[in-house]
Amino acid sequence: MIVNRLINCLIKRRHSTNKLRFYTNSYQKQTDIDQSVNLQATFPSRTHTCGDLRSSHVNQHVVLSGWAQRIRKLSPELIFLPIRDSYGTTQLVYRSPSLADYTNLILQEKLSQLSTESVICVEGVVIQRSQDTINKNMPTGEIEVEIDKLHCLNPANTLPFLPSDKKLSSEEVRSKHRYIDLRRDTLQNNLRKRSLASWIIRDFLVDEGFVEVETPILFKSTPEGAREFIVPTRTKGLFYALTQSPQQYKQLLMVGGIDKYFQIAKCFRDEDLRADRQPEFTQIDLEMSFVKVDDIISLIEKMLVQVWKKVLGIDLTNKVPFQRMTFNEAMRKFGSDKPDTRYGMEIRDISSFISDLSVLSEYYVECLVIKNGITLLSNSEIESLKLLDTSEDSKAKCEFHKIKADKLNSWFFDSHLLKHSSNLYDSFTKELNIEVGDFVIMNKRKKNLTKSWTLLGRIRSQFITLLQLKGILDISPLEHNFLWIESFPLFTYNDDTGQLVSTHHPFTAPLSEDIDNEEIKGFEHLINALGHGCPPHGGIAIGFDRLLTIISETNSIKNVIAFPKTASGNDLTVFSPSEISKEKMKEYGIQLISDKN
Amino acid sequence: MIVNRLINCLIKRRHSTNKLRFYTNSYQKQTDIDQSVNLQATFPSRTHTCGDLRSSHVNQHVVLSGWAQRIRKLSPELIFLPIRDSYGTTQLVYRSPSLADYTNLILQEKLSQLSTESVICVEGVVIQRSQDTINKNMPTGEIEVEIDKLHCLNPANTLPFLPSDKKLSSEEVRSKHRYIDLRRDTLQNNLRKRSLASWIIRDFLVDEGFVEVETPILFKSTPEGAREFIVPTRTKGLFYALTQSPQQYKQLLMVGGIDKYFQIAKCFRDEDLRADRQPEFTQIDLEMSFVKVDDIISLIEKMLVQVWKKVLGIDLTNKVPFQRMTFNEAMRKFGSDKPDTRYGMEIRDISSFISDLSVLSEYYVECLVIKNGITLLSNSEIESLKLLDTSEDSKAKCEFHKIKADKLNSWFFDSHLLKHSSNLYDSFTKELNIEVGDFVIMNKRKKNLTKSWTLLGRIRSQFITLLQLKGILDISPLEHNFLWIESFPLFTYNDDTGQLVSTHHPFTAPLSEDIDNEEIKGFEHLINALGHGCPPHGGIAIGFDRLLTIISETNSIKNVIAFPKTASGNDLTVFSPSEISKEKMKEYGIQLISDKN
Repeated sequence: MIVNRLINCLIKRRHSTNKLRFYTNSYQKQTDIDQSVNLQATFPSRTHTCGDLRSSHVNQHVVLSGWAQRIRKLSPELIFLPIRDSYGTTQLVYRSPSLADYTNLILQEKLSQLSTESVICVEGVVIQRSQDTINKNMPTGEIEVEIDKLHCLNPANTLPFLPSDKKLSSEEVRSKHRYIDLRRDTLQNNLRKRSLASWIIRDFLVDEGFVEVETPILFKSTPEGAREFIVPTRTKGLFYALTQSPQQYKQLLMVGGIDKYFQIAKCFRDEDLRADRQPEFTQIDLEMSFVKVDDIISLIEKMLVQVWKKVLGIDLTNKVPFQRMTFNEAMRKFGSDKPDTRYGMEIRDISSFISDLSVLSEYYVECLVIKNGITLLSNSEIESLKLLDTSEDSKAKCEFHKIKADKLNSWFFDSHLLKHSSNLYDSFTKELNIEVGDFVIMNKRKKNLTKSWTLLGRIRSQFITLLQLKGILDISPLEHNFLWIESFPLFTYNDDTGQLVSTHHPFTAPLSEDIDNEEIKGFEHLINALGHGCPPHGGIAIGFDRLLTIISETNSIKNVIAFPKTASGNDLTVFSPSEISKEKMKEYGIQLISDKN
Repeated sequence: MIVNRLINCLIKRRHSTNKLRFYTNSYQKQTDIDQSVNLQATFPSRTHTCGDLRSSHVNQHVVLSGWAQRIRKLSPELIFLPIRDSYGTTQLVYRSPSLADYTNLILQEKLSQLSTESVICVEGVVIQRSQDTINKNMPTGEIEVEIDKLHCLNPANTLPFLPSDKKLSSEEVRSKHRYIDLRRDTLQNNLRKRSLASWIIRDFLVDEGFVEVETPILFKSTPEGAREFIVPTRTKGLFYALTQSPQQYKQLLMVGGIDKYFQIAKCFRDEDLRADRQPEFTQIDLEMSFVKVDDIISLIEKMLVQVWKKVLGIDLTNKVPFQRMTFNEAMRKFGSDKPDTRYGMEIRDISSFISDLSVLSEYYVECLVIKNGITLLSNSEIESLKLLDTSEDSKAKCEFHKIKADKLNSWFFDSHLLKHSSNLYDSFTKELNIEVGDFVIMNKRKKNLTKSWTLLGRIRSQFITLLQLKGILDISPLEHNFLWIESFPLFTYNDDTGQLVSTHHPFTAPLSEDIDNEEIKGFEHLINALGHGCPPHGGIAIGFDRLLTIISETNSIKNVIAFPKTASGNDLTVFSPSEISKEKMKEYGIQLISDKN
């Protein structure tokens, strides 16, 4: 059956010149539903935005809408009022004519009563500023608009802070009033960059033949991976889980012959939050059939070149192909699976200088030499680096050596690790180029990696940060050394149990041998699908929020998300999460665990 | 602190020439994590897709990848094998050379053992088909590829059905194996159209200056609106709710100065499912500041013109502006808030013929004349129309009158509604143009509307459907009469209580007078925001899945969603929802309600 489909338009209007009227007039009960509400607006439409006007518009009669900024009243006859909208700011001016008439007095009165951040609509004429009053810092600085008429569309209460405040209010206050904070230039720009970046990425991928497919968010609970949010259904005992990633579905799409899939996908993980984590986050997720590793790598490189070029105006073409490094090399040289390669100071393997073979069988022994460290760093800064070593076993502790002038030939004697290697002291000093003034850190670490950082890696990173804070080192936030880390281990050792566990996404788990049958059952559909004509395929998922923090040169993903949640998972703007009624829980077959249980 | 950010690429490989090897080799435990897995592929990359090759490629050596179709073995020396991928199908041919060598015998053997829908990669040479074997129905029908080498990348088990089956298997079987069903041309096309449509819509809106903003899905429980999914948090007693629409957040974005917002947004409603409902669905959601109703209407018209043009190649420009009709007119003339205006047969108000004033004070009295109805419809069809009247009160029942030849001047006497109007019979017949053969239906309906259909509206719609099923009426599925329904009532009468309730989105609710304080509290943040510089704004949300069913000429949104859920909310492909452990519930402070309570 084909029926005519309709698009019903509900226009919501939130406008009035008076808050009282707002509630009582527009929203009064409609007792006669045959009398449909008249929703026609009573203010004129803007002819330009507040970022549009230039000298070329002089003498035009214009209408502008936006937020009233701080008023500057030089006299009752001369009032300046900047008006701001999402596109810019324009200077409005009121000049009383020599013979003030009644209309003018009203306008003057209206202006005087205007609170900052009230929403207004003004009519007026564009006039050229005199040469000495032109503001070259404003795109609209050549002109001002002489006001004829002022419509106050919605007067603002006294605001807890102003978007134009130079000094930011506390994060809590700004989060509660995110709708004010969002008017700040920084956040406006970040959200616009985000929109632009997603647009460019889609443009690029569609052009490359990708099909954007939306996969379900109401997924099911899987036995592996991060902690997932659960969603009770009205069938008691059955739960959805919010998808942690579209991994399984995108593989099914490959089996389904989609060939090149992508999605800018919302994902959910109920992990403890940090600066770079949110309970819901966005991934650029893609998967391709019949591809090789290099196909994916070069696709992503091309994509990032586009994004950098079109969002930031930066040409990365001479950085392509990006550098590649194996996971092992990264851990050995930089002690991190995401090393900052813009700074050298590599960690050195000093196993060859260790005589105690029992140590070597279990540990890597490594050394980090901070050239000139004891001059560059204050004592308290050196202590802060030492504090990064949290090992409780005193024998497992790092060794820190300050190479003072009188110690150059004797510091070895304080070292436990080099205790039995006195014959190698000279070659050690030579090979590691240790000089007076250096700060030398040595550490042995278990060969079985459990973390994405080693202790020396942390110390190196913290040192680089210190140098930047002290102004000694200046790495531009926009200078990026793109780097692929390859050959991640599929399994790693669990910190507590010492057992091998899967490092990556849930799907590797059931294919290892020692997963129990219950867990395999949860993946049966996927294993079945693989036997029904599954092509070879590969893909990648890129954290979109984190990508945006790089592009926006900010240090928190909260600054690139419209309504982020706090570290404890709260949305302070709308007050979520919140309590719900017992009746609602009952519909879903659940109740709170009673404290007595 | 600025650190170098990394994009870690995990390439997942699901390929092997042998399913056993698949599990044991690629996924065996990596006991030495220093030995990273070698994931280099062992099959050649495709040079073309299966839809690419034409006469111009003759004599080229090519590599194709895809799914083996049904093999046609004319003799051991002549075997035809179509290969299909996401872009088309190409005929492969094996011709044994006169002196078959060992390599050839192996190839022949491999071909013979190939199960349909196995994933293969072939190498061969493009050859011109002879004039009499050219297949004009296939884009690649001019050529075939003579196979040199065959790599079976993943042999398929026996499939429950084939994507090429003319007769579709049951919906349940296809849903369980959605990854096979997705290979069908129809679903491939629908998903590609969906991707294209969303791309065009974004292209259009970005071009119009809109900013795409992602708003949270983890929202909070609100007192009004459809039933919402709840999500327990690890803070016992606190719940998120999945957003039913970005309504509140988009209004906060307006307060935040985003000016023109859009989002192709996932929304969630835990309602009972129907053909056009899914628990998660997608909306084209937008909102603009400082606009008039007409701005939104003309924007959407422009957008749909683009979509129709670029997805369907249909030019709608001469349909713009779309017709507009008030809600009241639609209900009066067509008995529906989404009338099919491609067919006339309007419902007539016959109040002027009713003498009983007590009826008129409470009811609208209406008449539908089905011209020639008793000839067009069989008796059982007429009975099926009568069955639509489910009113239990016999006095409230519809009247059905067959205007047979001998009844033209007497049928009135059977009418209760016209009982006291005998002086008006002539003018009634005349004004409603009632003739022999017509089927006349009269009904009185309460003035206080509670539904989006009236009984006469349903009968009219069912009649149109019957005519189409019988082949009497032919309305092309692509002939659309776009229609705006305007002036929807803000409030309507509750079916059960007779009280006025809000008809639309949650936000209208707290502004009416008789909402209790608790409910207002849930909206406090929004009411606060309105006092902090909220511009006048308006917007619309269009059901993207439903829009796609129109574009794809299908009758169920399931056919435009990659992994839809069944009417009972199950995903048969991955078996969700599912049970979860007590431990998991405990983490979220919940337990199942015990049956004893």
